[in-house]
Formats: sequence, C-alpha cells, structure tokens
Amino acid sequence: MRQTETRGEMAEVPDLWLRRVLRVLFERREASRGEIARATGLDSAGVDLAVRRLLRCGLVRLLGPDRSPSGRRREVLALEAEAGYFLAVDLEGTRVRFGLTNLLAEVRYRWEEPVAFGSRFEMRTFARGVEKVLRNLTPEERDRLIAMGVSYSGVIDREGRITAFNLGWKDFPLEQEIACVVDLPFFLGSESLIKLMAEHWQGAARCCGNCFFVHVANGVGFAGLVNGHPMRGRDGNAGEIGHITVDPAAPDRCKCGKTGCLEAIASSPNIVRQYRELAGQSLPKVLLGDQVMEVFHRARSRDPAAIAVIDRAARYLGLALAHAANLLNPEVIVLGGDLIHAQDLFLPRIRAELARHVLPEIYASLEVRFSALGFDSGLIGAACLAFHEALREPALFAKMLRSARSRPASANLARLAAARGSRAVRP
Amino acid sequence: MRQTETRGEMAEVPDLWLRRVLRVLFERREASRGEIARATGLDSAGVDLAVRRLLRCGLVRLLGPDRSPSGRRREVLALEAEAGYFLAVDLEGTRVRFGLTNLLAEVRYRWEEPVAFGSRFEMRTFARGVEKVLRNLTPEERDRLIAMGVSYSGVIDREGRITAFNLGWKDFPLEQEIACVVDLPFFLGSESLIKLMAEHWQGAARCCGNCFFVHVANGVGFAGLVNGHPMRGRDGNAGEIGHITVDPAAPDRCKCGKTGCLEAIASSPNIVRQYRELAGQSLPKVLLGDQVMEVFHRARSRDPAAIAVIDRAARYLGLALAHAANLLNPEVIVLGGDLIHAQDLFLPRIRAELARHVLPEIYASLEVRFSALGFDSGLIGAACLAFHEALREPALFAKMLRSARSRPASANLARLAAARGSRAVRP
Repeated sequence: MRQTETRGEMAEVPDLWLRRVLRVLFERREASRGEIARATGLDSAGVDLAVRRLLRCGLVRLLGPDRSPSGRRREVLALEAEAGYFLAVDLEGTRVRFGLTNLLAEVRYRWEEPVAFGSRFEMRTFARGVEKVLRNLTPEERDRLIAMGVSYSGVIDREGRITAFNLGWKDFPLEQEIACVVDLPFFLGSESLIKLMAEHWQGAARCCGNCFFVHVANGVGFAGLVNGHPMRGRDGNAGEIGHITVDPAAPDRCKCGKTGCLEAIASSPNIVRQYRELAGQSLPKVLLGDQVMEVFHRARSRDPAAIAVIDRAARYLGLALAHAANLLNPEVIVLGGDLIHAQDLFLPRIRAELARHVLPEIYASLEVRFSALGFDSGLIGAACLAFHEALREPALFAKMLRSARSRPASANLARLAAARGSRAVRP
Repeated sequence: MRQTETRGEMAEVPDLWLRRVLRVLFERREASRGEIARATGLDSAGVDLAVRRLLRCGLVRLLGPDRSPSGRRREVLALEAEAGYFLAVDLEGTRVRFGLTNLLAEVRYRWEEPVAFGSRFEMRTFARGVEKVLRNLTPEERDRLIAMGVSYSGVIDREGRITAFNLGWKDFPLEQEIACVVDLPFFLGSESLIKLMAEHWQGAARCCGNCFFVHVANGVGFAGLVNGHPMRGRDGNAGEIGHITVDPAAPDRCKCGKTGCLEAIASSPNIVRQYRELAGQSLPKVLLGDQVMEVFHRARSRDPAAIAVIDRAARYLGLALAHAANLLNPEVIVLGGDLIHAQDLFLPRIRAELARHVLPEIYASLEVRFSALGFDSGLIGAACLAFHEALREPALFAKMLRSARSRPASANLARLAAARGSRAVRP
C-alpha cells in the first residue's frame, strides 16, 4: 500500500491502524515490525506508517535492534509506558482500592479505603480515594490522565443499578453516582470480566484467545474470552454459569428463584449453609469468608460432613465447567476467589469431573490453573479495561495521542513507585 | 481523515477499509454512506474513499437517492450482485448438491447427485457435479469465479479426515481429495456452521450477533455466533453441545465413549433406539430418517412409548440449550434438522425447559425459532462462508477487485436463473 506525502508531512494515518498496532504492543509488550504486520493484518508499508506516527507522538518507543531467529537485525518496539496514566478502582467486598497505573497497566501508586461490614460505602469516600491518588501527580502528569476503570462486584440490573451487600448498596445507580463525584471518563466492568482481563494480560491466561475465569465467592462469577473478545451476549448478561441448573432434582434454592443452580451449591455462603445442615452444628460467628475457610480446614481434618460438602460443590463446579468447555473449547480455565485458599481440595476433584464429562479431543488441550495475580489483579484488570475502551472512544484516543506528545515523563512518579510499599496492603 | 490525490488518481485505499465496507453491504444488502460509517467505525472521508474505489472497480453500485428519516436526500449503495460468483457444495447425507451463487449468495443454478445409502460417494462424482455447474458459464463468467464453499456433515478429526457414514467415508482426507479434482480455492465448513451462516444471512437469525443453530440428525450439531463471530475455540472444536453430559446418571452410552451425553439421548438414531427399547417392538425397516418420522407420527397418535421418548429427548435438548443460553445470552436459537418435522412436538417442550432453567433476565430476551430456509440453506451458507473467507485471503480479495472490473455482467446467467426450476429438487 502506497501513501503519499504532502507539505513535507506524512498523509494522515488511519486511526484504525494506530489502534491495531497499540493493541498488539499492549498484548505482547514488545514486537518487531514484522510481528506487528502478522498480528494486525496490515502490510509492511502500513505498519511502517503507523509506527512512525506513534513514535513521533511518543506513544511508542524503540527498544533497539535485536536479532531475529534467522540472525537478521530487527528493531523491536514497545509502548512508552509513561505516556499516559489511568485511574483504577477495585470495589471489592471488604475494602475499596484505588490505583494509578501507566499505559501498561503497571500499578504506580495505590490507596485503600476500608469498608465497614454492613454499613453503606459512601461516594464521598470514593471521591476521597480518587483524590488521594491524584494529589501525588504533577500538573503535567495530570494532563496525561486518560480515563478510569472501575471493577464492581455484586449484581447489576438492566438500568445499571448495582446491588452489593458488602458495600451496603441496594439498586445503587453507580454510574450516575461516579459521574457526580469524579470528573474523568470512566468504564465499569464486573469483577469477573476485570479479573479475566488481568489474567489475560499478565496472569495465568497470557495470550490465550479462548479462556475462562471462574470466581467463587458470595456467588459464582464467570467471564470468558472467545476468539480474543470478551463474551457479552445480547444484553451483556453472558457468563451466568452460576445459574446453570447442574442438577434439576436438587432441592437447593437459589436467590434467583430457581432450584439446582450451581451458585446455590458451590458459592461460599452455600458451602457454609450445607455444612451447617449436614453437620447439625453451627460455625464460629465470624465473617462469611472466615466461615468458609473453617469448612475447608475441617475437610482437611477429615470431618466427614465437610468432605461431603466440598465433594458436592467441586463435582458440580466441574460439571458446569465441563458444559462450558464442551461448548467453547477453551485453552485455559483460571480459578479464582475463595478457591485459591482450597486448591488442594478443589483441583483434583474439578479435574476428575472435567476428565469425565469433557469430550476427549477438547479435554486433551485444556489446562486448569489458579489465579496467581494476588491483590492487585482488580486494579490491573480495571486499567486494562480502561486502556482498551479508551482506544475505541475517539475523543479519548485523540487525547492519548495528544498528551503523549506534550512533554517527557517526569521523575516524580519514579519516586512514588519507589515508595510503593508505604501503603501496601496485605501481600 | 484526510487523503491526498497524486497524478490525478486517488491514493490507494487500505484493503482493510474496502473489506469492512463490503462486509457491511453483504450483511445489510443496502446502506447509505452514513450507515456504513457507523457500522464500520470509519470516518466519513474514509467511507467516501472506499466507496469511490469500490464503485470504480464495479463491486458496488449506486441504488439512487433515497430520503433519510429526517427528509434529507441520501445515496443508497449495494453490492453489484453479478460482479463475482461462488461455487457452493452441500455434502448432505442423502444427496450431494452443487450450486452457483452470485456475490450475494443467491443461488443462480443448482445440480444434484444422488447418494446410494451405504455405498461410498466417489470424488469423480464430486468433480462431475462441479463441472455440470461450471459448463453453463461463459468464459467471462468463469473469470469471475472466486472460490468454492463446501458444507460437510460427519465428524472431522485433527488431521482434517472426515468420517461420514451416509457418504461411506471413514477417515476420508476430504481437503486433499477436493484439491485433486477441482482447480479452485475452497473453504470447508461443518454443516452446523454453514447453516448458522445461512440463517444469519437470510434466515431466522438475520443480523443477530449472538445466536445459535442446533441441528438434530444423526448427531446433535451446534454452531454459535458470539459478538458476530463464529465460535471456534482453541482447536476449532467449539460447539460440542451433543457431548454435554445432560444426566450423569443416565445409562445411555454415547459413541464418544461417555454416558449421558445429549447426543446419546436426543439424536434421531437414539430416539429410534429408545422407542424400540421402550415399546419392545421394531419399526418398519426403512431409512433411519423415516424411522424417526414414524416415532414422531406415533407420538402424535398418542403412543405412550413414543411420547415418553420425545419428552425425554426434548427435555434434555431444552436443558442443554439452557446451559448454553445462561453462558452466552443469545438473542435467537434456531432449530433445524429433523426437528423441523416435529415442531409441534418439540417446541412447547423445549420452551418449557428454557423457561425453567434459564436465568429470567436472559430468558426475557431469548427467542426460539425454526429454520425456514429449506433445502438451499447448505448452498447459501457455503457461499456466505466462501465470500467471507475470500475477503480475508489477500490473493482472492485482489481477484475479486480485479475480475469485477473486467466486463459487464452478461445476460447468460439471467437466462439460467429463469430456467432455475428445471433441476429443482423437492421444494
């Protein structure tokens, strides 16, 4: 493809090309022009034009020459990590975390606000958390702030109202409320989708175009990538694995109104409920998260009721995941949430069910892994979401191009990053 | 986006833009420049450039001015239907159909070869069918032949070998065999994927980005669109709804080696098997297709064994579709294959199961429909596949651009199309 130059300037490069190149560099961290051409479907002249434009505006940098496998010299390119910043917010159940990330979703600074169980999380606390992060930025860095990504847990209805018991929210119009207190474009994603993006970006599902993230906590959350794109469905309701009827004859009543849903059997509160029913004894009066840990602990101590409950939950988790695997032929299933604290109990049982119920051709290329990202995964995923959405939004994309050019990165954030341990949360 | 002109010619337009515009015109049949801009994400200058290029090479034509809803004059564009041709082959179980279609996947001419049950379908018959279609074309029309789409039924293994009992094929290397007898680029698609594409293009799932096609015959076939893209999975094995374990306790053994698979209960041969077991009587010795029709007939005549078998098959079909709907939040489920002959028996039962097992928010926006495309659907879908794959293949795309320009459409095919009834198969 040939392009012409006018007035000593290059003809403008289509945004579409720039976006494709940026996505590839985000996903791979670094790539040669040839690799970019193969991954984007652009021809080499197109890649060259796009890369020159991105180098010129400072969004991309040259890592210097490398040797290709055939021994030829090649230039390697990468995103200019400090060319833009994102705010990331993780509305977890027991705390709310705020972070500043660079273009590569690397967390440069974090802040955390506690949530008192049962009492309502107020938007002025949200605003304060955002301000705590922003006040560390120089005016030049603030100019490079592009957007905010927000991870929410809980249930969202068709009008975008969220019900999240841990935050004391019932039909809470989160989108409108955020717009009232923060003057920055923002994007919301469910906890499962956000964590899937984090796993895809730097966790257990790196570069897998077909993968699932399953999250067991108060409910059973699920998100999937199909051909590299998040499953959303007609109304954005895709991923309701928690409401698959895993046993039509099961008496377990789900809060959705049906019986026999996976969530009514395998979510943490229902693991605790079944243990209580089966053992005929109550558990220590502590937070739910600690109660389910107690059931895990008792299963390890060979308490027959605890073992029976874990068996049942894992069997149905495995069955529902087998349904999803037969339908979608994924490469990796990543398990997260409370399952992380019971890998020894769940993994062999889930694997056995998958081996039993997944078509052999599909099972042969399927891996099950645990999330290994830890407590930053919500912030990382929220920043990934914001990056990808900002690329799609013409005004934000223009801002990304413009602000990267504005001035060189300052040393201020390097200092902040060095002080990163100061507000570190539990490791 | 600004582009410059050199030597009185337009700067070359990126192929990416041309492809996007062609895809939108294929999907919508006609669109204004504004509609194309919205659907492609290109800006208006980009659309203008791409459209001028496509008009110039004869792939697109102007339908003349229309009025927009606001009363403004606007030009409406469409594909030039006769600017290119595709061969389509439908390797059905009981016959093999060949067709010539234009760019819009409209079947202009068809030919059919019978398949003797149990005897092997030979590739020289395949070659003859292709030749029967091609010999009607003038040399100019042959020049416009771009590619061939082939729909296969049966099971394909990792090496691309097909086992299709009706065609007498066991581990048959279809791809290599076609390459030996037909000198035309070609693309293979499973029957379910092909029929889904046909439904999406002009059937019961028009313009639905999230939809399923379920096909009950010798097995239970399934294909799905997610965000407008076919589900393929890591190794192309997505869509194995037939091997979802719908009842872990069921004794029905599946040919995949597992028990309790949907296919072991709801496929036509298994409906017949269960009826024989339950009624303790054999069915008339006819082709399998006719035996399952006999079970449908007996269910309508209130034969309790037939009703019990249909109940069970429909219940598990509904349950497996509910799993898929909870995961993927589709807009439409299209039912095809032998189910078409038993809509009265299956539809109410499948709907009841979906209502029972699908999350209410997802069920509220879900429709279940029957395929209404009839016997051309395999040819139409194969041509759709060939069109979309040819767009992606640089050499074929270049041919599409070049041959459209070569000369005006002749009247020859109009004559053939008028004689279309001559070899019409059962309506």
